[in-house]
Amino acid sequence: MKVRDRHYTAIWSDKDHIGSVNVIDQKKLPFSFEIISLTRFEDFCIAIEDMTVRGAPLIGITAAYAMYMACRECKDSGDFKTCLKEYANRLQETRPTAVNLFHAIQYMLEAVKNIQIGSDQEKTAFDAAEKYFVHEVDCCRKIGEAGLPLIEKISAEKGGEAVNILTHCNAGWLACGDYGTATAPIYLAHNKGIKLHVWVDETRPRNQGSRLTAWELGMHGVPHTVIADNTGGHLMQHGMVDMVIVGSDRTTKNGDVANKIGTYLKALSAKDNNIPFYVALPVSTIDFSLSDGIKEIPIEQRDAGEVRMIEGFADNHLQQVLILPENSPAVNFGFDVTPARLITGLITERGICAADEKSISGLLQSR
Amino acid sequence: MKVRDRHYTAIWSDKDHIGSVNVIDQKKLPFSFEIISLTRFEDFCIAIEDMTVRGAPLIGITAAYAMYMACRECKDSGDFKTCLKEYANRLQETRPTAVNLFHAIQYMLEAVKNIQIGSDQEKTAFDAAEKYFVHEVDCCRKIGEAGLPLIEKISAEKGGEAVNILTHCNAGWLACGDYGTATAPIYLAHNKGIKLHVWVDETRPRNQGSRLTAWELGMHGVPHTVIADNTGGHLMQHGMVDMVIVGSDRTTKNGDVANKIGTYLKALSAKDNNIPFYVALPVSTIDFSLSDGIKEIPIEQRDAGEVRMIEGFADNHLQQVLILPENSPAVNFGFDVTPARLITGLITERGICAADEKSISGLLQSR
Repeated sequence: MKVRDRHYTAIWSDKDHIGSVNVIDQKKLPFSFEIISLTRFEDFCIAIEDMTVRGAPLIGITAAYAMYMACRECKDSGDFKTCLKEYANRLQETRPTAVNLFHAIQYMLEAVKNIQIGSDQEKTAFDAAEKYFVHEVDCCRKIGEAGLPLIEKISAEKGGEAVNILTHCNAGWLACGDYGTATAPIYLAHNKGIKLHVWVDETRPRNQGSRLTAWELGMHGVPHTVIADNTGGHLMQHGMVDMVIVGSDRTTKNGDVANKIGTYLKALSAKDNNIPFYVALPVSTIDFSLSDGIKEIPIEQRDAGEVRMIEGFADNHLQQVLILPENSPAVNFGFDVTPARLITGLITERGICAADEKSISGLLQSR
Repeated sequence: MKVRDRHYTAIWSDKDHIGSVNVIDQKKLPFSFEIISLTRFEDFCIAIEDMTVRGAPLIGITAAYAMYMACRECKDSGDFKTCLKEYANRLQETRPTAVNLFHAIQYMLEAVKNIQIGSDQEKTAFDAAEKYFVHEVDCCRKIGEAGLPLIEKISAEKGGEAVNILTHCNAGWLACGDYGTATAPIYLAHNKGIKLHVWVDETRPRNQGSRLTAWELGMHGVPHTVIADNTGGHLMQHGMVDMVIVGSDRTTKNGDVANKIGTYLKALSAKDNNIPFYVALPVSTIDFSLSDGIKEIPIEQRDAGEVRMIEGFADNHLQQVLILPENSPAVNFGFDVTPARLITGLITERGICAADEKSISGLLQSR
């Protein structure tokens, strides 16, 4: 999507300089826009570890490019396979619970496993990483195409008046490479000239909404307003929200959705006010081994420091400020589960379906 | 309640020095505990204006003492009544929409209206202000006594295991003089030795939960944990909340409750998880002219700066940090309305009743 009128993706290879991959430093957004060139394998590991890049799909893409760099660095090691295995282990440790990271590494190991020493390992690995990236972005674009008619329909019903969409956290192009998941239908609708406006939940404790989603939308020219996470219910009670679209970290086979903490509260409010609540996700995030999200999806407890301190910008630099009494404890649950009964539909790259087991398996069998 | 093992109220007159009233500087909590002496009428006005004191009941009490100080300063003015009227006008402007401010001023004007010039105006006014204060605190204590059995019952059902209570914003002693409204049953239960633990919503955008409620509870020794506002739903889904108690800014005759933004979302979640949701309030905040809270209660829009910036403590002083893109707009609705259907009961100084017109009027007619 656009940043200052130029099209950017969250990661891109340097065509003129094959040994270098560029990423946007997301730790510094929205206060400064800095591009980092990753030229050594270890640069990629650090970028994932320190959250220069974040978001499940983008972590996967970055890992794919990292494995390309591993091939480059291992080619003269004498024992290519052993070297590659060691690099893969190091990469896996950067975010041990990230499923996309694991998948991307496996995909790359598979792609290069039959390479003959002496052949062009680098080219094969680079092409495989590019293919992985293109596939991920393609998936987001298709989610956008599937969701677009929902926005078009509301726009038509409102006689072209702005469609008000509420979103939570960042399921945007920064997390995915391009388009995003929850934001993909929004960008496609905006690009098509449909009038819309996005309510952006700030999404405490890490503020991915106010820091990343608001920045993305603003840079692409999408009208939006940032709100405290407490505000959505009031807006919905007063007809100021036409639909909700959020992303998903993990979805059960019957349509329960684990997503950023607070998603469940917005879903309750949407239901109470008869407002459609959609979840946008690639089908790869559906876990067919799970059938009860609340009971079965383990919820990560993160560092309480993220609740105790807030990071923001003052005096020309990023600062952390303490917002509660020094001696008060805090807890930080990263996600919650929205039961399928509160979800109007799932928007996937294969189309839209209801959040129930029959509809989900029907959608997947449809091709 | 206690601060470092000594009993404090949010405001107190200096018995040895009748011309001085002390308040806790709530702007600086929880990072420093500073007491300010108000010795001139204008000091009181500034304390209300700049939110050194806040919370509807405490604003009323402060205004009552301010009017006592007005009597003191007007007594040699030549035209006592005109002088007092001018002071009252100045005071009313400090927080024009605060109903308690208006009531306290009217009450004090009434109390001193028959004072003869030459008689002891000061003493009469001082006694009236003290009476107002005592009445407000008494009301909170009675709310606590009414709510206490609810906590005792859950404690008994849990065999004495800690009762987990979630609260939103600050409806505590800092807002009320002493005890608080939502916190009154909690303090009384804790003082009685009942094991409990409070989940404190941080309450963005102004963080009255993490800054004030957490401080109050911590200082009085009540076990508590601060959470992001997004977290309550998850806790309720997992059996970690036994009851919710919040305050109210305004209640309709049929039991709809306007309270700090985000209250509605917690009420929805409590309902969805079959958890009792109580609202603690003095009956004086019930507005019998209103019967549909969502339609009829106007919701204050506050400065968007409160969403854009967060105040916290760093480098030994209070700082504001920007948390969203410079060019992104934000909105700041101060309150939302929780419909009566989501409320288990109202805890008042006259006892507990259901949130419906019949029960409310029954309670009020009962004496």
